[in-house]
Amino acid sequence: MPDTDLPPLPAALWEDLKVATTATLSTVLIRRGLRATMMQGVLPLRPGMRVAGEATTLRYVPAREDLSDPALLANPQYPQRKVVENVAAGKVLVVDARGDLRAGILGDILMTRMAVRGAAGVVTDGAMRDAAGIRSQRWPVFAAGVHPAQHTDRHLAVGIDETIGCGGVLVRPGDVIVGDDDGVVVLPRAVAAEVASAAREQDQLEAFVQRKIAAGSSIVGVYPPNDATRAEYEASRQV
Amino acid sequence: MPDTDLPPLPAALWEDLKVATTATLSTVLIRRGLRATMMQGVLPLRPGMRVAGEATTLRYVPAREDLSDPALLANPQYPQRKVVENVAAGKVLVVDARGDLRAGILGDILMTRMAVRGAAGVVTDGAMRDAAGIRSQRWPVFAAGVHPAQHTDRHLAVGIDETIGCGGVLVRPGDVIVGDDDGVVVLPRAVAAEVASAAREQDQLEAFVQRKIAAGSSIVGVYPPNDATRAEYEASRQV
Amino acid sequence: MPDTDLPPLPAALWEDLKVATTATLSTVLIRRGLRATMMQGVLPLRPGMRVAGEATTLRYVPAREDLSDPALLANPQYPQRKVVENVAAGKVLVVDARGDLRAGILGDILMTRMAVRGAAGVVTDGAMRDAAGIRSQRWPVFAAGVHPAQHTDRHLAVGIDETIGCGGVLVRPGDVIVGDDDGVVVLPRAVAAEVASAAREQDQLEAFVQRKIAAGSSIVGVYPPNDATRAEYEASRQV
Amino acid sequence: MPDTDLPPLPAALWEDLKVATTATLSTVLIRRGLRATMMQGVLPLRPGMRVAGEATTLRYVPAREDLSDPALLANPQYPQRKVVENVAAGKVLVVDARGDLRAGILGDILMTRMAVRGAAGVVTDGAMRDAAGIRSQRWPVFAAGVHPAQHTDRHLAVGIDETIGCGGVLVRPGDVIVGDDDGVVVLPRAVAAEVASAAREQDQLEAFVQRKIAAGSSIVGVYPPNDATRAEYEASRQV
Amino acid sequence: MPDTDLPPLPAALWEDLKVATTATLSTVLIRRGLRATMMQGVLPLRPGMRVAGEATTLRYVPAREDLSDPALLANPQYPQRKVVENVAAGKVLVVDARGDLRAGILGDILMTRMAVRGAAGVVTDGAMRDAAGIRSQRWPVFAAGVHPAQHTDRHLAVGIDETIGCGGVLVRPGDVIVGDDDGVVVLPRAVAAEVASAAREQDQLEAFVQRKIAAGSSIVGVYPPNDATRAEYEASRQV
Amino acid sequence: MPDTDLPPLPAALWEDLKVATTATLSTVLIRRGLRATMMQGVLPLRPGMRVAGEATTLRYVPAREDLSDPALLANPQYPQRKVVENVAAGKVLVVDARGDLRAGILGDILMTRMAVRGAAGVVTDGAMRDAAGIRSQRWPVFAAGVHPAQHTDRHLAVGIDETIGCGGVLVRPGDVIVGDDDGVVVLPRAVAAEVASAAREQDQLEAFVQRKIAAGSSIVGVYPPNDATRAEYEASRQV
Repeated sequence: MPDTDLPPLPAALWEDLKVATTATLSTVLIRRGLRATMMQGVLPLRPGMRVAGEATTLRYVPAREDLSDPALLANPQYPQRKVVENVAAGKVLVVDARGDLRAGILGDILMTRMAVRGAAGVVTDGAMRDAAGIRSQRWPVFAAGVHPAQHTDRHLAVGIDETIGCGGVLVRPGDVIVGDDDGVVVLPRAVAAEVASAAREQDQLEAFVQRKIAAGSSIVGVYPPNDATRAEYEASRQV
Repeated sequence: MPDTDLPPLPAALWEDLKVATTATLSTVLIRRGLRATMMQGVLPLRPGMRVAGEATTLRYVPAREDLSDPALLANPQYPQRKVVENVAAGKVLVVDARGDLRAGILGDILMTRMAVRGAAGVVTDGAMRDAAGIRSQRWPVFAAGVHPAQHTDRHLAVGIDETIGCGGVLVRPGDVIVGDDDGVVVLPRAVAAEVASAAREQDQLEAFVQRKIAAGSSIVGVYPPNDATRAEYEASRQV
Repeated sequence: MPDTDLPPLPAALWEDLKVATTATLSTVLIRRGLRATMMQGVLPLRPGMRVAGEATTLRYVPAREDLSDPALLANPQYPQRKVVENVAAGKVLVVDARGDLRAGILGDILMTRMAVRGAAGVVTDGAMRDAAGIRSQRWPVFAAGVHPAQHTDRHLAVGIDETIGCGGVLVRPGDVIVGDDDGVVVLPRAVAAEVASAAREQDQLEAFVQRKIAAGSSIVGVYPPNDATRAEYEASRQV
Repeated sequence: MPDTDLPPLPAALWEDLKVATTATLSTVLIRRGLRATMMQGVLPLRPGMRVAGEATTLRYVPAREDLSDPALLANPQYPQRKVVENVAAGKVLVVDARGDLRAGILGDILMTRMAVRGAAGVVTDGAMRDAAGIRSQRWPVFAAGVHPAQHTDRHLAVGIDETIGCGGVLVRPGDVIVGDDDGVVVLPRAVAAEVASAAREQDQLEAFVQRKIAAGSSIVGVYPPNDATRAEYEASRQV
Repeated sequence: MPDTDLPPLPAALWEDLKVATTATLSTVLIRRGLRATMMQGVLPLRPGMRVAGEATTLRYVPAREDLSDPALLANPQYPQRKVVENVAAGKVLVVDARGDLRAGILGDILMTRMAVRGAAGVVTDGAMRDAAGIRSQRWPVFAAGVHPAQHTDRHLAVGIDETIGCGGVLVRPGDVIVGDDDGVVVLPRAVAAEVASAAREQDQLEAFVQRKIAAGSSIVGVYPPNDATRAEYEASRQV
Repeated sequence: MPDTDLPPLPAALWEDLKVATTATLSTVLIRRGLRATMMQGVLPLRPGMRVAGEATTLRYVPAREDLSDPALLANPQYPQRKVVENVAAGKVLVVDARGDLRAGILGDILMTRMAVRGAAGVVTDGAMRDAAGIRSQRWPVFAAGVHPAQHTDRHLAVGIDETIGCGGVLVRPGDVIVGDDDGVVVLPRAVAAEVASAAREQDQLEAFVQRKIAAGSSIVGVYPPNDATRAEYEASRQV
């Protein structure tokens, strides 16, 4: 499905995602029956990092000696290099590495290229290399591990913008990817704006609840909030 | 076994546990043949945190669609909510999540409620959600992972203050739980005071040994200390 | 093979290893067909630490009650104590713990002894105990986990300076061990100097590439560098 | 919940379960939104065995030296012994062993006792001991592994007829347990009769489909069957 | 790459593969530097089965509730159904299930359809359902496990005849797949005939060696065979 | 420790081990505090096989390209070939493969050589190759898996008759190894005869208990047997 055929995403989505947490997004997703949307074991290389953007995908398969060759890296058409060189601003590159942590799928120089192009971040269920360099760049990278080796002995990149799996979740190009210290969630594009808006609302309500609890309130009727608590919250917003 | 039937714990225990490390406590436990007392893979969400307190337990089983329902969360009798709302000061809530990391078993709002009530901390072999919020609270939480989702798709809370397993260790209500950067150990209540006292002694001796080694001493006769080293240590304490 | 029979290592090697990263070292090793040289899952206890030195090895096997006894720790001939007490300056102690994380293989007092003797660091596929103490020492320790318990219930040390496996890699005494935030690589002694020198060269070239990419250059022809980029790099060094 | 309070199960259920496969039962369960009902990795010790019956449950926790003692085995009130000695005819004993395969949870003598009492079988996510003896008895036992050791070093039995987890599935006393070569499924008691009846119907339809496919039919319109195929099936039953 | 563009495979290949074992094929592959060609953990559902044929591939990704729907199964264009319905004689269907064993990827009715069409077998790193039925059919199916559930809750089939990974090995349509009791190996199409021929030769030599060893010969000079043993073997073939 | 220095084993030991099961041996071992004596996950390639004999050990480490070479296999001094060629009658070869199942550590030709020499069997925590051939030989081989590839890409054999770990258990040359369908236990040489004798006694008592239970007896007082049951058993032996 070419990008141009995807339904557009409203600007408000990105505003909502500046504050919505993956915890609250996952709650909203679960309410809509979208349970298989939270990656397992994919965390920020540097705690505190956040990422939000549209997915562009890269699929790796296991390397095989008759097809894999480090010389591929010099070929601008090799999918790994092609997707990095051409990534659009705002995109999150999601890499399906089948959870194989025995090589780094990308390193700090390619991260620099993506950052310069305005990409929003990288998410993978594989390992990254150059972890120290990537951490010092403070550009958001989420992975399942680190490993010093380049990828060519373990992985072969075979496809860009296919439907893939990553961290146990199906990802399609154009889905909205959000990550923070709890991990990574995938918002299916068709519902991303609604989910993010509802989550932002929910986060504001939870901040109110959090303050009440911190002030000594019982959780009964407050978390989850009953009608009285919701009314109190609404009143507090009028001020 | 109701709490009131448990043998009391001396105040000195808590003084001892302010300084005793899990490493030394485990050494003392092993000397007494209590080897199955160290959890596997349960670590502080924020390195440097320490916890010590009496266990109150919560048991989760796998969720099943005919019994699990997010609406349970509004029921004050639902065990997860009940134990949090009513936790006594000084308690460590120990949650048996069967090592399943595919959902967060508790989040930052409930942590706030427990902290306000004076609970000592939380320990689980499952995952926590709202990791960023929990880390900023600096209240001690030990877990095997993090995950954004609420627990209701994966876990159903079924019992409070049962005998459970957590991180591979049997925990009974009233056992003494201690955690630091090496992980979590369980002191069976009947021996907790003696073990903690012996560990504190041992830690002081080891601090002396550490200083000697740092000053250039051989470890022979010093670590473990022979009679001469022990005498030297005793003499140093007279000063 | 006695140490004295090993081919000497040039001083330049250690200069090169002050700057060469494990990522680049692994690239050079792979180019030479030495793929099975990167440990899996062995990371610094304190991010940012680096280690480089000659391997001295210690082999653990599973403990068995008829042979294991905490009293062994007082015997200066017990391999664990012997290797620590006698370690030579510049050595990295590499400990084969079979990936078993259910006990700490060494703790902070023995680390102190090794640091005093001028050893370069410790690397193991087991767990360390006294993690907080070790982190505060800032002496380089790389491990696969942490655990509070002493090793005697799980491990028995049986041999010094044997050929071992660690983190899935064969290590011989005298091999060169290098670790940083990406993990640990093993440079076979016979090629260590050449590999380190090539890696340092490569790292300088990559720093040049990194600067170009950061300045907005495409990766095409630049990473990996083609002849023109290499010429530009060479020219930049003449300045 | 005492057994006497459970809604009765119709005799037809057991007739249906003589022929319904776990594959078809799981299909019917999934149609009703009951997805978390299939155990993972629990298989018959002897391929070809089938089991069906009402669950009675036993919960194990990790052993701890101050509470575990092989002498417990002589105590008729020890839950493991009590449940075996008193099991009712038609019951399947489901044992929650937390997936720990490092000891056998039950052996062939206790299997004999249960068989004599008319129990229907045993299901566990732990390991069994005396596998050769159990296989020769041809009485249905489903487990996740085998191990020679008695359970007392690894497990302590703590509760009978609690709600437990087994193989990742919640099991309550009175639920209906069915196992064959594909594994084990749990039919929640309230829907067991309907699910089994629907599955038996489905199995008969699938046998018809299987014959058509074996005779050379395309699967299109046949599997899954469209209205025409269903009509053909219904007609074939009139004969 | 359309099938018609693939280099043809000689008939002798299939004769060779009737006798060559995966053990010997893997030896020949390793000699040619093709090490990443042996799947991990993919075994025949019925010991003693053998399979050999050209790969046709099917790729599964994780299911997601907005895209997965059991109703897909009635759509002849759904990749799982399409590939089964249209499989060519002699093909082995290789299914990339990412090693996820939490559902059966195919069952006995679809196996029957493939067998009727003359397909050679199925290979997957996922689980099969209807294991008892499949075993009774004696048609070769190789998998990493069994599970009763249909695939739609865990997997979504997304592509036919793509390059995939299966059991850790890259597979392209047209590669030659061979399986026996040791597991499954992939012969890259371009070298399949040579590898199979060499393996058959090697197997004959090894049968000669096996007879010599069984008759009491030392392995020295015999296994691996030196020139004298090879000459003896050649002489034995002249008879 | 040379073989000649080992305390001799009585002939009665081997008689006892013809009937004693690993289940009962493990019970006797546990009674003596020897808990770390049961391997995990090491099972007969062909169910029903039994093995008993004195251990001779072989240690593998991970292969590394500068040291590993298939040409080693032609060197009679290569430890893998040397131990097979020279194995003594009655020995069980125990191979430490670190649980790595990514290659076969030995195959059917070498099994033939060992069988011809009168060795008692093979035990490994690695994988075997030529599983079909080995099963047809009916000579006892216990392993953790099967794999088609020869070992040289993954393993390098480095030592004969060292103290090793296998399946999580320490094994020394001369220890007594026993295996059946429940797995493999290690009897430390110094206690092997006593343990086997006690186990045989226990097995006879359990056969008596088994018959009583099969005849309808309660387990209370019978299993474990109280004094009355033991007296009854003793009386039954007088007949």
